[in-house]
Amino acid sequence: MNEQYDHNNERIDYLFDTDLKIIQSSDLFPFSLDSVLLARFVYVPIQKGKLVDLCAGNGVIPFLLSRRTKGQITGVEIQPEVCALAKRGTALNHLEERINFLCADAKNSEEKIGRGTCDVVTCNPPYFTMEAARDVKLNRHLAIARHELLITLAEVLAIGGRLLKPGGKFALVHRPERLVDILEGMRAQGMEPKRIQYVHPHRHKPANIVLVEGTKGGKPGLSVLSPIVVYRSDGRYTEDVCPTS
Amino acid sequence: MNEQYDHNNERIDYLFDTDLKIIQSSDLFPFSLDSVLLARFVYVPIQKGKLVDLCAGNGVIPFLLSRRTKGQITGVEIQPEVCALAKRGTALNHLEERINFLCADAKNSEEKIGRGTCDVVTCNPPYFTMEAARDVKLNRHLAIARHELLITLAEVLAIGGRLLKPGGKFALVHRPERLVDILEGMRAQGMEPKRIQYVHPHRHKPANIVLVEGTKGGKPGLSVLSPIVVYRSDGRYTEDVCPTS
Repeated sequence: MNEQYDHNNERIDYLFDTDLKIIQSSDLFPFSLDSVLLARFVYVPIQKGKLVDLCAGNGVIPFLLSRRTKGQITGVEIQPEVCALAKRGTALNHLEERINFLCADAKNSEEKIGRGTCDVVTCNPPYFTMEAARDVKLNRHLAIARHELLITLAEVLAIGGRLLKPGGKFALVHRPERLVDILEGMRAQGMEPKRIQYVHPHRHKPANIVLVEGTKGGKPGLSVLSPIVVYRSDGRYTEDVCPTS
Repeated sequence: MNEQYDHNNERIDYLFDTDLKIIQSSDLFPFSLDSVLLARFVYVPIQKGKLVDLCAGNGVIPFLLSRRTKGQITGVEIQPEVCALAKRGTALNHLEERINFLCADAKNSEEKIGRGTCDVVTCNPPYFTMEAARDVKLNRHLAIARHELLITLAEVLAIGGRLLKPGGKFALVHRPERLVDILEGMRAQGMEPKRIQYVHPHRHKPANIVLVEGTKGGKPGLSVLSPIVVYRSDGRYTEDVCPTS
């Protein structure tokens, strides 16, 4: 256990635009809009299926996916304190029969989950390379979530490619800077990129997030969906992000 | 010469939003918005430089680039009838000292232009693979411009990679369906993709055009610019396309 961890620093929030609750801790790290957008973006089978979320954090993606599919969802999270939050969040949302969390290194998830068995694999991985980690002056939980300390993009793609069954979907959220690595890497792992959506903070600003989905064994041919613009010029969320606003 | 070619089917138009004239023929094919957007998108050195436009058609990209750079521009076009239009357009616009056209196969352009000598290479290549060419029921000029009959994407990228000097820019307009091939292919030819911009016919429709720029010998790291939306909901051009509208 992390000696610095203090339950008094926890809070329970409602997940963006839903009735789902999430336990967050200021000692660890908060969920982000990135995860919410990935959980909306990815294809999911509605009635049944086996879904896996790698680098699951406090569980925001599994919780949101549970509102779109009746399938079984497994979250894989390496940090015990963070995985514990996700498990307690599962109980809080009464989702124990649909969601489970493995406190494990994603690189070992194949033996626990089964090669070629998954319909969907999602991941909101660490965005920054170790070269960018010189400026890690945050706590270790946050550093692990943000920098490729324990897992790299190439490793995430390799795990996704092994877990998926033919026709299964892999969906990732990342920074556009890494797009070429993502697309090349997906193809190298037998997952053909099929759908991309960019997220722009404002209508006339460059994208700062990219959502990518590939199909295991899919044919070439990509669609670039209409962009998601986060903020209107008056600073409020757009309808792309908050349809009920 | 094409026996069907009839000068009576020619017309002279002004190039979109400029004082430049272009000679078009209904026997051949018209310039497209794609070329206009590519000529605006690409990085160009302002005061001098050697620029090459592959698959130059009737010359729209060289003509537009001449308004952004004082460098020397060479257009390469394989079809004699089309290249003749481009040469006559050069005279019509009094650009003979700045622009020349080679009636040549782009695959042979290296020996005429010189390996590793160019600052900028642009290309609006045929978009459709030969597999899609089953439905070529158009005239041969149009078929050559639209389908990979005489040159493929991989060949265009290889030519660009050979013509450019270190640090030189390669810019391409294409369909988003081919994005993975474009990015993989650019990297394979030593050109690192650095800037992407998507063109959406309407704000909430998928992209139907992508602009990509790479740097010969560049470092990884991509920017995705704010999207270009062509039409407003009332059917008029947006300011992205027609800033003076």
